[in-house]
Amino acid sequence: MRTVTYGAACSLDGFITAPGGSMDWLHWSDEVQAIMAAYWKTVDTILMGRKTWEFAAAQGGEPSDVPGGTPSSYVFSRTLETIDRPGVTLVKSDPGAFVRELKSRPGGDICVLGGSDLARSLLAAGVVDEVGCNIHPVLLGNGVPLFTDCGRRVSLELKECRAIDGGCVYMTYRVTH
Amino acid sequence: MRTVTYGAACSLDGFITAPGGSMDWLHWSDEVQAIMAAYWKTVDTILMGRKTWEFAAAQGGEPSDVPGGTPSSYVFSRTLETIDRPGVTLVKSDPGAFVRELKSRPGGDICVLGGSDLARSLLAAGVVDEVGCNIHPVLLGNGVPLFTDCGRRVSLELKECRAIDGGCVYMTYRVTH
Repeated sequence: MRTVTYGAACSLDGFITAPGGSMDWLHWSDEVQAIMAAYWKTVDTILMGRKTWEFAAAQGGEPSDVPGGTPSSYVFSRTLETIDRPGVTLVKSDPGAFVRELKSRPGGDICVLGGSDLARSLLAAGVVDEVGCNIHPVLLGNGVPLFTDCGRRVSLELKECRAIDGGCVYMTYRVTH
Repeated sequence: MRTVTYGAACSLDGFITAPGGSMDWLHWSDEVQAIMAAYWKTVDTILMGRKTWEFAAAQGGEPSDVPGGTPSSYVFSRTLETIDRPGVTLVKSDPGAFVRELKSRPGGDICVLGGSDLARSLLAAGVVDEVGCNIHPVLLGNGVPLFTDCGRRVSLELKECRAIDGGCVYMTYRVTH
């Protein structure tokens, strides 16, 4: 079964951007690069919500630079009418049901990009298999949260935890279904 | 200088209680007991806000079982008129100024008990020296948050990070003033 992962770099108080969208607090390092390179090798599908898509599209490129070829991207939106970009598919149906079906097809792993709106739907639907975060040593106070209330308690199992460069803490969890 | 520490056990999404005040997700272990026993040996003063005080008072005991004697406790409240309990002092003045003065007096370390209202004031005033958390492997979705917006970015320095029993991650930070 394809693994669906949601995660991001965040502050200790759980924000993935500072107020105003600022990401100047993000610490990039060789360790992060190695973690991400290993992760992207397993991924061939990217899921995102409308806001993340519009942010990525405004940057003019793919949402992520995935080695080994362009991934399939799915953008979930009730309001967008069309998306005219090769490899990017607009999904207007229920995210949970869509991803459940997607997981049953053959393929590589599936990455849910943040913000948290889409992740909340998918956690509520029970289709997320792993969550991860790279906790940065800062309290941002406000911004876009990594997690928002999905309406139920989600139990996790710690898979990996280690301090990495810059005082960051990298943690991954399995969702216990 | 006396070290002022704020911290608590929390969920991965940053709550110290679940909705309705439930703490059934808390994992107690010999490792946690050893960490807390070592910590309480350094502390002779406890700070708390009104809500935490009322919660502690309703439990009928001291807010924490501190080895080596009853600590001095200070309760910060604009609304309470008196507190009639030996060793517990009501403070109606500005928390930041009060704690700054308290730190200048001789004594042991100072523990800020959560919730986050008092911690937010003290972080805003720049009088908190260390923050810590014991992140439990669960998403609670809602409840009392460990951190709320203190109105400015707070930079931290990772002091310690390790996985402990029950899939918990224990982390401590220095606040970089």
